[in-house]
Amino acid sequence: MTGSHGKIAVFGAGSWGTAFSIVLADAGNDVTIWARREEVAATINDRRQNTEYLPGIELPPVIQATHDVEKALHGADVVVLATPSQSLRANLTQWAPYVEPGAVFVSLMKGVELGTLERMSQVIAEITGAGPERIAVVSGPNLAKEIARREPAASVVACADEEVAKRIQARVHSPAFRPYTSVDVLGCELGGAYKNVVALSVGMAVGLGFGDNTTASVITRGLAETARLAMALGANPLTLMGLAGLGDLVATCSSSLSRNRTFGEKLGQGLTTEEIIASTRQVAEGAKSCSSLRALAARTGVDAPVAQYVDEVIAGRMTAQQTMDAFIARDTKAETD
Amino acid sequence: MTGSHGKIAVFGAGSWGTAFSIVLADAGNDVTIWARREEVAATINDRRQNTEYLPGIELPPVIQATHDVEKALHGADVVVLATPSQSLRANLTQWAPYVEPGAVFVSLMKGVELGTLERMSQVIAEITGAGPERIAVVSGPNLAKEIARREPAASVVACADEEVAKRIQARVHSPAFRPYTSVDVLGCELGGAYKNVVALSVGMAVGLGFGDNTTASVITRGLAETARLAMALGANPLTLMGLAGLGDLVATCSSSLSRNRTFGEKLGQGLTTEEIIASTRQVAEGAKSCSSLRALAARTGVDAPVAQYVDEVIAGRMTAQQTMDAFIARDTKAETD
Repeated sequence: MTGSHGKIAVFGAGSWGTAFSIVLADAGNDVTIWARREEVAATINDRRQNTEYLPGIELPPVIQATHDVEKALHGADVVVLATPSQSLRANLTQWAPYVEPGAVFVSLMKGVELGTLERMSQVIAEITGAGPERIAVVSGPNLAKEIARREPAASVVACADEEVAKRIQARVHSPAFRPYTSVDVLGCELGGAYKNVVALSVGMAVGLGFGDNTTASVITRGLAETARLAMALGANPLTLMGLAGLGDLVATCSSSLSRNRTFGEKLGQGLTTEEIIASTRQVAEGAKSCSSLRALAARTGVDAPVAQYVDEVIAGRMTAQQTMDAFIARDTKAETD
Repeated sequence: MTGSHGKIAVFGAGSWGTAFSIVLADAGNDVTIWARREEVAATINDRRQNTEYLPGIELPPVIQATHDVEKALHGADVVVLATPSQSLRANLTQWAPYVEPGAVFVSLMKGVELGTLERMSQVIAEITGAGPERIAVVSGPNLAKEIARREPAASVVACADEEVAKRIQARVHSPAFRPYTSVDVLGCELGGAYKNVVALSVGMAVGLGFGDNTTASVITRGLAETARLAMALGANPLTLMGLAGLGDLVATCSSSLSRNRTFGEKLGQGLTTEEIIASTRQVAEGAKSCSSLRALAARTGVDAPVAQYVDEVIAGRMTAQQTMDAFIARDTKAETD
């Protein structure tokens, strides 16, 4: 069985890489998933399931998996990247020589690199030399497990080149997955990275026992902070009010499926970062990005209390309760001051 | 025991009027609640509880209740209005003669009047002749039960006259309730009225079995629709991104305590409006405002599919499933088109 569109390589066999492969398959593409661990690739090929990250979901026959980078990339005109943000640079440096000339990179990653403070599209450009017309981002309210169950969802495909955005849109449009185009790569990436940090903050409030008024306030303040930084860096404010900003943020903060929110809840309950990491296997992107986003905001001259407080709690310098007390103690003023 | 600030009359002994009375008491005011039914006033005075709408919450001693309009208004320099939106005009016409000269009206109501398509501040101005410097609005992510339990919450106090907004802010600032000032009465009122309609739509999606991706998409589209109409009418877009827009919307849509969301869930499960009304006692404001907001959008020349679809389902002309199918079938395009 062959997809009508052509071949797409997906790097990363976690829950989102695998769920997005189902979208790609449903949209008519041949899909090859590259898995870091050989046994994960073997399980996908043999059992038609990713038993570790999406148990119980049958994968369509056009999805193949491999641990061989060259094999994954051979003939793929689209390369989807779904690895942890902080390891992209090292990984992509190894993969780049095998990428087909002219292939478009599609980032599903939601983080900002520590140290360089680069967004994922910037890392991709730096490592591969690809121009902006070869780098796209997909971001929206897309909890992996719901996407894998083919529940209807909308998302944004952003590329600086609108024609490329439309081409990728056509490649990822399945019956259940509705992509909208955008040229605001920066806005989509900052929305995606920041929402993990805000979800950590919301999780902390939940862990401390606060209700929906408080979490809604944290979400509102978090989105305002995201928009401030994104606009200062040149993003379109409407992106942050859209699916890749507000939409993704609300889905993540509402969901008990969210790793970042769950991580925050445990911080709110008094566990330390080390204790939480020791007890879970998956990465909470926000636990790293809080530090890089805080630094990016400082460099840009933007006030970023949510990123700052989350960073302090992650680093063990403040407790979740102390950050909530600090929030409540702030002076009242005009809302838009 | 006497509050240090002076006396405030609160009209409406429902859950929000009563919970807000606790805020006012904690902020240092004497509070007299006017209750439509004499027995509710008697229960509040005798048992120090509103057993019907806020059972289990003890009311501070400075809160008194009465069924006597003149007694409630005597000496009150602030009049808080917390009645159902559609009955404000008839009620206020009766109350207006007893209002102290110069008293400031504070609306807690979230609706748009059927027929006239007037916001509550407009109805107040029309009936009482009060100028914009005597009409304020309080709106934000303020679920009544959480406010009554004194969980920390933030809100917006809006008045066209900023000095009056600050004066009311001081009167409603309690240890747990943090009011921010604004001069955008229109934006706050439209945010409040529209969120009930969006909550109905979110409830329908939940009732149909959809997950967090879908509800987050509905919230995103609903807020964009709210902002379109509010901006067309002259509101500040930042109001809609703030506590009285996004904040209130997210709190209401997240909460199982929300009447509008619950009403929507039942519609999603296939019950008719009549069946739901017959089985519940409280009013879901959005079930009326969907019609007036739809008409207001049409008169303003703004596309309003959320209000339109909710209105169709409330009126029994479409099922919730049909509106969701219509949403999914819409063409994909650029997000901000």
